[in-house]
Amino acid sequence: MDNVLLVATMDTKSREVLYLKACLKEAGIPVLVLDAGIKGKSPVPVSINREKVARAGGKTMIEVQGMGHEGKSLEVMINGAIRCAQDLYRQGDISGVISLGGSMGTTLGTGVMRSFPVGFPKVMISTMASRDTREFVGTKDILMLHSVCDISGLNRITNRVLHNGAMAMAGMMQYPPKSLYLGKPLIFISTLGTTEACVQNVRDHLEKGGKEVVVFHTVGAGGKAMEEMLLEEDVRALLDLSLHEITDHIFGGDYDAGPARGSVALQKGVPTILVPGNMDFIVTGPINTAKQRFPNRSYHSHNAAITAVRTARNEMETLAKVIANLCNETRGPCAVFVPMGGFSAFDSKEGPLYDPIAPELFAAALKKALKTESSLHLLPYHINDPEFAAALIQALEKFTGSL
Amino acid sequence: MDNVLLVATMDTKSREVLYLKACLKEAGIPVLVLDAGIKGKSPVPVSINREKVARAGGKTMIEVQGMGHEGKSLEVMINGAIRCAQDLYRQGDISGVISLGGSMGTTLGTGVMRSFPVGFPKVMISTMASRDTREFVGTKDILMLHSVCDISGLNRITNRVLHNGAMAMAGMMQYPPKSLYLGKPLIFISTLGTTEACVQNVRDHLEKGGKEVVVFHTVGAGGKAMEEMLLEEDVRALLDLSLHEITDHIFGGDYDAGPARGSVALQKGVPTILVPGNMDFIVTGPINTAKQRFPNRSYHSHNAAITAVRTARNEMETLAKVIANLCNETRGPCAVFVPMGGFSAFDSKEGPLYDPIAPELFAAALKKALKTESSLHLLPYHINDPEFAAALIQALEKFTGSL
Repeated sequence: MDNVLLVATMDTKSREVLYLKACLKEAGIPVLVLDAGIKGKSPVPVSINREKVARAGGKTMIEVQGMGHEGKSLEVMINGAIRCAQDLYRQGDISGVISLGGSMGTTLGTGVMRSFPVGFPKVMISTMASRDTREFVGTKDILMLHSVCDISGLNRITNRVLHNGAMAMAGMMQYPPKSLYLGKPLIFISTLGTTEACVQNVRDHLEKGGKEVVVFHTVGAGGKAMEEMLLEEDVRALLDLSLHEITDHIFGGDYDAGPARGSVALQKGVPTILVPGNMDFIVTGPINTAKQRFPNRSYHSHNAAITAVRTARNEMETLAKVIANLCNETRGPCAVFVPMGGFSAFDSKEGPLYDPIAPELFAAALKKALKTESSLHLLPYHINDPEFAAALIQALEKFTGSL
Repeated sequence: MDNVLLVATMDTKSREVLYLKACLKEAGIPVLVLDAGIKGKSPVPVSINREKVARAGGKTMIEVQGMGHEGKSLEVMINGAIRCAQDLYRQGDISGVISLGGSMGTTLGTGVMRSFPVGFPKVMISTMASRDTREFVGTKDILMLHSVCDISGLNRITNRVLHNGAMAMAGMMQYPPKSLYLGKPLIFISTLGTTEACVQNVRDHLEKGGKEVVVFHTVGAGGKAMEEMLLEEDVRALLDLSLHEITDHIFGGDYDAGPARGSVALQKGVPTILVPGNMDFIVTGPINTAKQRFPNRSYHSHNAAITAVRTARNEMETLAKVIANLCNETRGPCAVFVPMGGFSAFDSKEGPLYDPIAPELFAAALKKALKTESSLHLLPYHINDPEFAAALIQALEKFTGSL
């Protein structure tokens, strides 16, 4: 059985850490403790001490303590902890990372965890798990366990919660997943619920043809995760069906995946089909906020917290230019497919954001900005029409040379 | 080995559910599937079918489908699923709940999980785990596993993530925690970091004296969890040292734990010591927002997202009346201890929110509104002074009749 790495601040949490370690040993899991505490020495010996962690972060412990800024000291220790953890991983010494803590401990523990690939077991027992966890979880599969009470002393609550966290890790380490998809060509697709009918058609067809399909939900974190994995995995083709995160990045919507969205696959040379799916709307907060921020538009209130705001016609032209630029700079095969009948379920004859002129303006701007028209395909269908899906499948077949 | 309950929508996620079930079986965990899908029938037999779930929610399946409002239909199915799950639990048929899904599936799965006590294994594999999880996790110890990509089809990502979620549950079920604290008198304490020195003094003393101490962090969810557990557990005494959530409830701060905060122990008759700890500030967002919402105050910027705003003197008088009313209506022993030297680390001579007049006004208003002065103790110390902690310990000893 491999080791689990327990990332800890032994100056403040040694009692709770020793209990967690005892639980893991109960399940037969050997533990390496990494101490990144800044305030004081660990009361017991650890596998990787804080001096070593500080040095891996580029400073001595005395330098770290002299920084006079808790946030900056923590940053050095996180960077050091990541380096130590990755060294152990490369040497084959650890098969999981577990941690426990409040706001500082969670920043430290999840900072280390986010440096590991998807599938590698990660458990964070935290007081910070019942709130916005985006900065902690990011684009990774971190198991966040809410501690309910403070992780401060041992009692009937921390006893159960720490034990459960340890055993969740033990279970994952005892039964690692088998790789079921070796050898199948891998295809990535991006979507939202409003382009789901198209995805289902394409996915079913590809899977029946022996492809492996991974679908990403373009709500910000989804697009970011997709771009990260495009770098890591050997992806045969990308169907970027929901470029909507670009809309939100440019016009200040909530589903923003950063400035690199859309460029990673093209820069790596992954064969890519771009579709302006869901670019007909900007996602923002409650309806009243939406009306203030984007006045005089069509709106669709998805629920109390989320409103879809119709993209204006001049904004559609801006988006067309962005897509053209992406396409013009690609290092691999690339094509743009435009569904002239509407870009999402909202942008359809029955939908709340329908505007039949917008696709025309979008297509005209795209045509003008594209270096080569051969990559442009204007199809007289709605994005969720089966005929549109059929055209995408045909194009993917060409790109991947099979099916 | 007991069963795990797998809460699912079999109309949309049957493939992923069957894989999750196979993973659990690999670890020797028998599975009961509860289907709460509204749109269509399960393609395979399940243990608890959707007709049964709908009926447990008070409707027929046809009535649920005829409601024409997805949110309301879901509510019926959640209530039905909770009732079915609790029946199984009472009969001793299940020892864990697991689920998977997007926004609807997560609402359903965690809705069932929140009806179970802390310590009962709960795993939610979700696309919604890297964002605000408060409405899902609430005050419970739900293990949230971020799925990274959509839970839509099986591929190298969903394969690993679903397998890890299943094995986390298997580990928890195979090694249930032992109750280490049987027979020790249980004491609850509320705090924030700004009253930590006081808590450590009190806690160390109580633990050395053979007491079991549970500490709650009063950031909204913490106070709510404490009140829920006060109802469930046999608590010998409560030291409500951080009544700050009442401040935020009344004046619109971020750490609001609802209107019942402070009343549960007193209504149940649990011996309680009330301390106005951290009532010297209201917690709100970034410094600019704080200045807009609460102009002309002292401020302390805790970090970029959190600002502590000094409570005004007239607000302190309002708070004193609220505490007096709580105390006047108690069914058990109750006392108020006021640290006249300051209510938190911020409200000290070295702190950013110090106001030596505020405790005087607070004490005067309290004296006027309290039915009996014998429960009032005005001490000439700062809340974090060892002398104040010593006085609290002495009072707790009286209440619990020991130490």
